[in-house]
Amino acid sequence: MDAVNIASMLARFSEHWAPRKIAGINDYDVKVVKLQGEFTWHSHADTDEFFLVIDGQLTIRMRDREIVLAPGELYVVARGAEHCPSADVETAVLLIEPRGVVNTGDAGGDLTAEVQSLT
Amino acid sequence: MDAVNIASMLARFSEHWAPRKIAGINDYDVKVVKLQGEFTWHSHADTDEFFLVIDGQLTIRMRDREIVLAPGELYVVARGAEHCPSADVETAVLLIEPRGVVNTGDAGGDLTAEVQSLT
Repeated sequence: MDAVNIASMLARFSEHWAPRKIAGINDYDVKVVKLQGEFTWHSHADTDEFFLVIDGQLTIRMRDREIVLAPGELYVVARGAEHCPSADVETAVLLIEPRGVVNTGDAGGDLTAEVQSLT
Repeated sequence: MDAVNIASMLARFSEHWAPRKIAGINDYDVKVVKLQGEFTWHSHADTDEFFLVIDGQLTIRMRDREIVLAPGELYVVARGAEHCPSADVETAVLLIEPRGVVNTGDAGGDLTAEVQSLT
């Protein structure tokens, strides 16, 4: 592989809530996603989920609190924890989770997206 | 856990080549490390290794080429690939790899560091 510039990867798509794979670590995918508005409440029974904000501001609503992330801030949603990502402004996030994890987790629905690869 | 601000974590230590854990994803550790100068040639037989430059400039020397990473750029060294990280200026890097991976891989030596946790 070559070096991966996150900003260059983000410049290659505009859709919201549609993760793009930009690298892999063993059987984990490194993805970028653009978010705006509110996602759907969901959980992942089998895995933690890593969020690192690149640009914008991400709110991760959980049943007992909210986590607000600015650029350069990260959070790991624990496996099984219900969460609902939302962003008032367009926000870019780096995601890391095992290959094959579905973005909507147990919730499914129209926002379920297949992961395309940019590399 | 709470939100983790990468810059705040980096402000809490000054040693070079001594990774600090700042989060976990399943059985993977998310670490930050400060680098300056040249590390040691080594490889990790059992795992890929993820590097994301936060500040400075990282060169990853490999046997057949060099990868140069600026802030916002990432690279994954494939399992088994010999590599030697180096940095002319002080450089801060986010690392992700399975828990228990030793920084010097198969090489060992004085630069081998135990991972301390900041969270």
